[in-house]
Amino acid sequence: MDNRSIGVFDSGLGGLTAAKEIMDLFPNESIVYFGDTGRVPYGTRSKETILKYTYSDIRFLLSHDVKMIVIACGTASSAALPHIKDEFSVPIYGVVDAAGYAAVRATKNGRIGIIGTSATIKSGAYTEYIKAHRPGTATFESACPLFVPLVENGHFDTQLTELVVEEYLSGIRSAGVDTLILGCTHYPLLQKAIARYMGNDVTLISPGREVSRFLKKKLDESKRHSPERDKEQYRYYVSDSVEQFEELGGIFLEKEIDGQVSRIDIEKY
Amino acid sequence: MDNRSIGVFDSGLGGLTAAKEIMDLFPNESIVYFGDTGRVPYGTRSKETILKYTYSDIRFLLSHDVKMIVIACGTASSAALPHIKDEFSVPIYGVVDAAGYAAVRATKNGRIGIIGTSATIKSGAYTEYIKAHRPGTATFESACPLFVPLVENGHFDTQLTELVVEEYLSGIRSAGVDTLILGCTHYPLLQKAIARYMGNDVTLISPGREVSRFLKKKLDESKRHSPERDKEQYRYYVSDSVEQFEELGGIFLEKEIDGQVSRIDIEKY
Repeated sequence: MDNRSIGVFDSGLGGLTAAKEIMDLFPNESIVYFGDTGRVPYGTRSKETILKYTYSDIRFLLSHDVKMIVIACGTASSAALPHIKDEFSVPIYGVVDAAGYAAVRATKNGRIGIIGTSATIKSGAYTEYIKAHRPGTATFESACPLFVPLVENGHFDTQLTELVVEEYLSGIRSAGVDTLILGCTHYPLLQKAIARYMGNDVTLISPGREVSRFLKKKLDESKRHSPERDKEQYRYYVSDSVEQFEELGGIFLEKEIDGQVSRIDIEKY
Repeated sequence: MDNRSIGVFDSGLGGLTAAKEIMDLFPNESIVYFGDTGRVPYGTRSKETILKYTYSDIRFLLSHDVKMIVIACGTASSAALPHIKDEFSVPIYGVVDAAGYAAVRATKNGRIGIIGTSATIKSGAYTEYIKAHRPGTATFESACPLFVPLVENGHFDTQLTELVVEEYLSGIRSAGVDTLILGCTHYPLLQKAIARYMGNDVTLISPGREVSRFLKKKLDESKRHSPERDKEQYRYYVSDSVEQFEELGGIFLEKEIDGQVSRIDIEKY
């Protein structure tokens, strides 16, 4: 039993899809969420800068005495987490292990596609995980830098979305993968267009959903579930406008979060 | 005569187009350029955060004893500059006054279009300038949040560019403007597609070019030209990867800048 909160962070709003899965799966757990909206996006930055930002995000969550940290950001999970996971006293879980684990179990033909931000693909973290856990698997990767701007501008399934999906996924489709990791928290919002292009036989792996399942395994093993609901169960922190986050965050979480969001100066951590 | 450098900053690389115009027009002037590549983009952030970042960018340039500052970033020029211009001891010039001045002189039918980032359009700064300097002018504005990602991913004039141009400019075209302000340093790179869509009769105003002309006027008036070339004439500073900036910056400037770029921690300013 451990009544402390679970810390979750993302470069912005996208990690709320993971937070929501955790809320749904663990109704007793309290969550401290940090969205680095003042420095988003991470996916186009250098590894050195992603590391620096990830350190400060973790230090902020640790200042809230969390019992574990979930990195909901695909970029920070792949480009930073492998280098720092043993440096902190609490366990830190990223979406790479969770989605990689699911992909390895899902594939039948041993051909897995991976899409993500430029930094995620450059890191090679997914391929490394997959080759270590299922030797002989073939992986096919594609960076999709326009997917996040499309989502953030409401192009979930328009003619524009179709054109961009084709540009980024044609190589992966013709490689004959049967499993595709959507390696960035924004991508599940393009799921309809991606699924139509890839066809019914391809399993899409969503990191937000998988990380909550992964967390269940870890909480069960370590017996660190919360015994009861906290009065102040969910708290949200951001590094840019509270209003913008409340408005869009409510859509991601499918519930009002007005009054639960605070702005912090992440540059101090 | 004033041999100190001119300070130029932008949220990233785009401001190099303005720096290049200044170099071409004033071969004797030294320039200190700062590109805030670790916190780019500014255009989607709140006014409060844009103000905070602009303050630190200015403080950094002042630490290099510049004689004047040019804000090459459309977002910082429109959302921050009007609030802070009188707080510093050196003159600070933004692209709004420069491009607004050119647009007011260019229009014949008194109908001007303005495109920019979300923050630029929300600020209303261009319309305010234009109405103050040419009462009775009608302005038509459109935020173009996908233009910067398109440029940064090499979509200068593709089918994708055409679709997005149509989405953002159809209202402005049908309003019958004869002048269009490209209110973000990235947009001149889409000039071909924008010009084709708008037609030959519409004058496109490029802030980078206009700000260097504006600067000429100011330097002539104040007689603060540099009398001679400095040995270390151009210095570049960034808040993310030096290598990325050297590679792309060389393309913007049409010359090698390897070895002239340094990384700084802008969060300390």
